[in-house]
Amino acid sequence: MRPWEKAIRSVVPYVPGEQPSGDRIIKLNTNENPYPPAPGVQKALREMDGEQFRKYPDPAANVLVDALSDYYQLQKNRIFVGVGSDDVLAMAFLTFFNSGKPILFPDVTYSFYPVWAELFGIPYEAVPVDGDFHIRPRDYRKDNGGVIFPNPNAPTGICLGLDQVEEIIKANEDVVVIVDEAYIDFGGESARSLIDCYDNLLVVQTFSKSRSMAGMRIGYAMGSETLIRSLSNVKYSYNSYTLNQPSLILGAEAVKDREYFERTTAAVVHTREKAKLRLRELGFTCTDSSTNFVFITHEKVPAQEIFEALRKEQIYVRYFAAPRLKNYLRVTIGTDEDMEAMYRFLESYLK
Amino acid sequence: MRPWEKAIRSVVPYVPGEQPSGDRIIKLNTNENPYPPAPGVQKALREMDGEQFRKYPDPAANVLVDALSDYYQLQKNRIFVGVGSDDVLAMAFLTFFNSGKPILFPDVTYSFYPVWAELFGIPYEAVPVDGDFHIRPRDYRKDNGGVIFPNPNAPTGICLGLDQVEEIIKANEDVVVIVDEAYIDFGGESARSLIDCYDNLLVVQTFSKSRSMAGMRIGYAMGSETLIRSLSNVKYSYNSYTLNQPSLILGAEAVKDREYFERTTAAVVHTREKAKLRLRELGFTCTDSSTNFVFITHEKVPAQEIFEALRKEQIYVRYFAAPRLKNYLRVTIGTDEDMEAMYRFLESYLK
Repeated sequence: MRPWEKAIRSVVPYVPGEQPSGDRIIKLNTNENPYPPAPGVQKALREMDGEQFRKYPDPAANVLVDALSDYYQLQKNRIFVGVGSDDVLAMAFLTFFNSGKPILFPDVTYSFYPVWAELFGIPYEAVPVDGDFHIRPRDYRKDNGGVIFPNPNAPTGICLGLDQVEEIIKANEDVVVIVDEAYIDFGGESARSLIDCYDNLLVVQTFSKSRSMAGMRIGYAMGSETLIRSLSNVKYSYNSYTLNQPSLILGAEAVKDREYFERTTAAVVHTREKAKLRLRELGFTCTDSSTNFVFITHEKVPAQEIFEALRKEQIYVRYFAAPRLKNYLRVTIGTDEDMEAMYRFLESYLK
Repeated sequence: MRPWEKAIRSVVPYVPGEQPSGDRIIKLNTNENPYPPAPGVQKALREMDGEQFRKYPDPAANVLVDALSDYYQLQKNRIFVGVGSDDVLAMAFLTFFNSGKPILFPDVTYSFYPVWAELFGIPYEAVPVDGDFHIRPRDYRKDNGGVIFPNPNAPTGICLGLDQVEEIIKANEDVVVIVDEAYIDFGGESARSLIDCYDNLLVVQTFSKSRSMAGMRIGYAMGSETLIRSLSNVKYSYNSYTLNQPSLILGAEAVKDREYFERTTAAVVHTREKAKLRLRELGFTCTDSSTNFVFITHEKVPAQEIFEALRKEQIYVRYFAAPRLKNYLRVTIGTDEDMEAMYRFLESYLK
């Protein structure tokens, strides 16, 4: 090892799902929305003036923040935007979790949390979910440096009720509590309604799932003025111009079409509920998912075998080699056609 | 102060230049290129498939890295891309400057360096440039935790020769040395030619200046496999998908048109050299800028007064209220028409 290598930060990076490409592929592995972005996005893309790219984008992202402010009827200084909710969450870790005490998050959860904690040197404690993968609010009643959990949780899809979320916040009024609502639009109740009551509550959402914009990288946070100002200060200390011109323009368009948003999320929910029935008929147990994926295990065949068999058929789902998850698969809800193709294969494979 | 506020990271954020908008405005304050992106960028924008935005972008950014690899004839595993060179540089600070020893950079330089150091808790020493704003390589011969400097330097525009850059690298083989070449295409000699000789040398460039793509937020770094792999690991620990779909596609197009790139950078250089002559006639002293801006001071009128007077005319230039810079203005090279409008005003104002 050369001397300069000693000062390199050592990390175990998050591994994103595969991004295979090809015409025959059925891609149910990264929780993308099967429906395209709202029609207004396409129209704005067609009309976009590429000459303007020579100029920096608005560092305050006003056009996008305005659209979110209108949509949620929330003041602009209570909304923060970033390059996907990963960017927003990473900045939130860096901004809020500096007490030196361990932060708390579930042991079965979004696998980026321990990665960010390691990256920024934040101590943490992974709090076990129960045997049925449920987060127990009472487990979050202990001294800590902050709390973060997804609601609904990933990769289980299980959603806490708003009363349970509030129970966790109430028990943690001395630290920042982050509710990561990447999947909330597919059936959960958002903690957004609580941000007026709790100044220490940050609610994070994304355009990648319910708004069909994973490719644009847009995430946002809502909370008290103090939380948002602190996040903005750290953002301006990291990169003044994070969202590029197309993200600002197309993101704003995506938010404006409430009808399309409601229609496509309802379609995903409909396909998901059908999936639960069909997969049970095939011998799978499904958690009660409120997201755009199902989390399943088979009564006879090990998850990894099913994963490999699907992969050979060019049907990509997600397998996690973690101790508590290794007999489960996370299957993104695709179009009805994609799902039928998967059921057909599983029917013959599991016979 | 509520208890949770105590754990908030306190920062003094970087203040970006104003982004005024309006038809009559002449914007010479953020070093944007006066020419639009290459024609291929416009064409690719017209042809872009917005339906694809529902999917995550390629986390490895292959289409863009391929284009850079072709352009520079450099292996792909020696190129790293990020959301503007600010993102690349911030990640480089986080990745490479962990020895606990102070890193070195010039006292007159890109004002984000101390901001990143503060953000990540990296000790630093600002090494004074000489009375004529020159970086003296011999000042970088001391024990340190890393070295970073822009070449050409900002906001002075002054460029070190490649032999002087190499002198600094040679004296610092035990730490990572970052040469921030945001403006190199306007007249300097890139240290890219040295990355085969020095495994600890990282060269960072951007699409925001010479490639007229500030609005797209694309930056990149070139260096040894070890440096690039370490940066990538930290990136994958921060945000797997940083560059969005339009950045990847349009960025690749911008790189492909070498002829347009050479023609527009030559036009900027031509206007800059004319600017030096015209401004000297008006009583200004100019540093010998190799960038797309000039750094000027007037023999009689304080910089701040000129700044305010220009601003009233809707001509925006950059003023820095820092001790060594407070009698200088940084003026971005615009179109010949923009520059003539500024000369006309200054002529009558300074009379």
